[in-house]
Amino acid sequence: MSHNRLFIPGPTEALPEVLAKQTDYLIGHRSKDFTALYTGIIGKLQEYFETEQHATVLTSSGTIWMDITARNIVQKKALAGVCGAFSQRMAKTISDSGKEVDTLDVEWGQAIKPEAVLEALAKDDYDTVAIVHNETSTGVRNPVGDIGAAIKKEYPDIMFVVDAVSSMGGNYMVPEKMNTDILFASTQKCFALPPGLSIALYSEEAVERARTVPGRGFYTDLVGIHDYYLKKQQNPTTPNMSLMYALTYQLDRMLAEGAKARHDRHEQMAQYTRAWANRYMEMFPEPGYESITVSTIANTQEKNIGDLNKELAKKGYQIANGYGAKLKEKTFRIGHMGEWNLDDVKSLLWHIDEIWEQ
Amino acid sequence: MSHNRLFIPGPTEALPEVLAKQTDYLIGHRSKDFTALYTGIIGKLQEYFETEQHATVLTSSGTIWMDITARNIVQKKALAGVCGAFSQRMAKTISDSGKEVDTLDVEWGQAIKPEAVLEALAKDDYDTVAIVHNETSTGVRNPVGDIGAAIKKEYPDIMFVVDAVSSMGGNYMVPEKMNTDILFASTQKCFALPPGLSIALYSEEAVERARTVPGRGFYTDLVGIHDYYLKKQQNPTTPNMSLMYALTYQLDRMLAEGAKARHDRHEQMAQYTRAWANRYMEMFPEPGYESITVSTIANTQEKNIGDLNKELAKKGYQIANGYGAKLKEKTFRIGHMGEWNLDDVKSLLWHIDEIWEQ
Repeated sequence: MSHNRLFIPGPTEALPEVLAKQTDYLIGHRSKDFTALYTGIIGKLQEYFETEQHATVLTSSGTIWMDITARNIVQKKALAGVCGAFSQRMAKTISDSGKEVDTLDVEWGQAIKPEAVLEALAKDDYDTVAIVHNETSTGVRNPVGDIGAAIKKEYPDIMFVVDAVSSMGGNYMVPEKMNTDILFASTQKCFALPPGLSIALYSEEAVERARTVPGRGFYTDLVGIHDYYLKKQQNPTTPNMSLMYALTYQLDRMLAEGAKARHDRHEQMAQYTRAWANRYMEMFPEPGYESITVSTIANTQEKNIGDLNKELAKKGYQIANGYGAKLKEKTFRIGHMGEWNLDDVKSLLWHIDEIWEQ
Repeated sequence: MSHNRLFIPGPTEALPEVLAKQTDYLIGHRSKDFTALYTGIIGKLQEYFETEQHATVLTSSGTIWMDITARNIVQKKALAGVCGAFSQRMAKTISDSGKEVDTLDVEWGQAIKPEAVLEALAKDDYDTVAIVHNETSTGVRNPVGDIGAAIKKEYPDIMFVVDAVSSMGGNYMVPEKMNTDILFASTQKCFALPPGLSIALYSEEAVERARTVPGRGFYTDLVGIHDYYLKKQQNPTTPNMSLMYALTYQLDRMLAEGAKARHDRHEQMAQYTRAWANRYMEMFPEPGYESITVSTIANTQEKNIGDLNKELAKKGYQIANGYGAKLKEKTFRIGHMGEWNLDDVKSLLWHIDEIWEQ
């Protein structure tokens, strides 16, 4: 299998030394060795995200936290901000879990603003607000910190759930500063690990809320996950420990780099990519709300993106087409997340220049 | 981290060459390369289990299929056979998902019999029967083939769900012969891989049933998983492809060994372990229903199992204590599943002899 350097918005490139950690011998998931591994990971997550909230790692993709939100947090009715394919999925998951949900829709490419959220909340009784921080389809970064502050000031009992699948571990974020009750992500994006684990930080209030919501099931039961950890410092179900070996190693690397430095590196890559994109076309997100981990570019020159990727593959690179029928070929996406740095992005863009200038 | 040879009922020992497959470079999960990998796995599963049913691989532990059963298969009311900790979990998951469930309880150590299932089914209207094939706690192997035949003869519309977490890939089984509508397992038991993926074989009728059941959510939506595969031959959410690299390799090994030969190897290990156990004490399961993948032994001599494991660790071996408060120290378990063979089991038991005869 040939190796393309992945400049797609996940899975991102994982370092060979990180991948190699997965080959360590398996251990019993009820052993003291596993407890030491897992509590170590939880502590590192809390340190990296500067939080006193609870942390958990679940064997799943990040999307399961949409189900967990629906089954544990939404009592009667949620408001979901919809600005792209993944926030659409959040609303659909809540609805498909038999709970009521209203959507706050903005045009794709636009961001969800705090004023719009407050306006929507005034219209009905909601117990949960769900927002995608970094909409991986449109490349929009929603101002979740401002939204969280606005919600909690007026409606302290509303639970605030944020999908940070493609930004957590890239963007600098502290749950307490964002007023999030659940903040979740996957390992294969900014954490630069293989897919297979989801990571969540959740407030005490989220657990208390969950205790009041029936029908949480087992695998998706936040109360079960929480109480089991308090009692045994382990997972209620068998976790992917191979990937946890890689996660604990990678968290050490992330802590050594520092959360703010990691943010700045992503910001650098994003700014360079935006400047490059604006030479040819324009950015798809509204100005001021561009993601720092994935740049979605409006394909105003109608370049053939499928062909571009074929040419890039010959050089050992891969970018992403627009997400879904609505954005494919009309936009394209460059993921600059995880372990890439500015020089890597410059190399990629130099290759695209060369292809387009032929 | 020292390496103990794992004779616990999961995770089991994975071969170093299998673990190494996880270090292959990541690829996009929407790429043709991934489609080729995944359709290859699905084909190999269908070949190994001699089935024309559908197959799927989900990033989760096997337990999620209890939630999937509750959310997709149970319309109104299920009957769950309960004969140990994991079948108890199945009943609880259905109930905690807001569906009705009656339990058919037998004493722990006893098996669920077809006649008892038919007797229970006559008492009320059930749409689903859930049975654990190989109860990992008690070491009982329930006669699911006979149960399936009995149910489908009298009640063809009842869906038959079988948890085969600790037997699938060890015991020879064909879904059509067992009349199962969902048959599921995890990778870390008889498949001898790290934990992190679940494997399920499901009937067309299971999908048709699921289409009638609201509230399936997203991550646990069997219809979504099924339809996405038909359309794109991929997973709806990002899968753990590192572990799929290992799975496709291990399935080739399993196919080379053959499902019946693999069963016979497990049977050999089980028979030897039972004969050994009977020299000291007795088997916990009722005769004729002993698992071939995990031997649960009644600790009638009141040996200290915690101490035994400490001594075994010095020799590089690990077995399992009884599962849960009810069976701990009163029983102990020897997992002989996955890649172990008779000589490996003989070595382990020889070491236990030596410890006990000191």
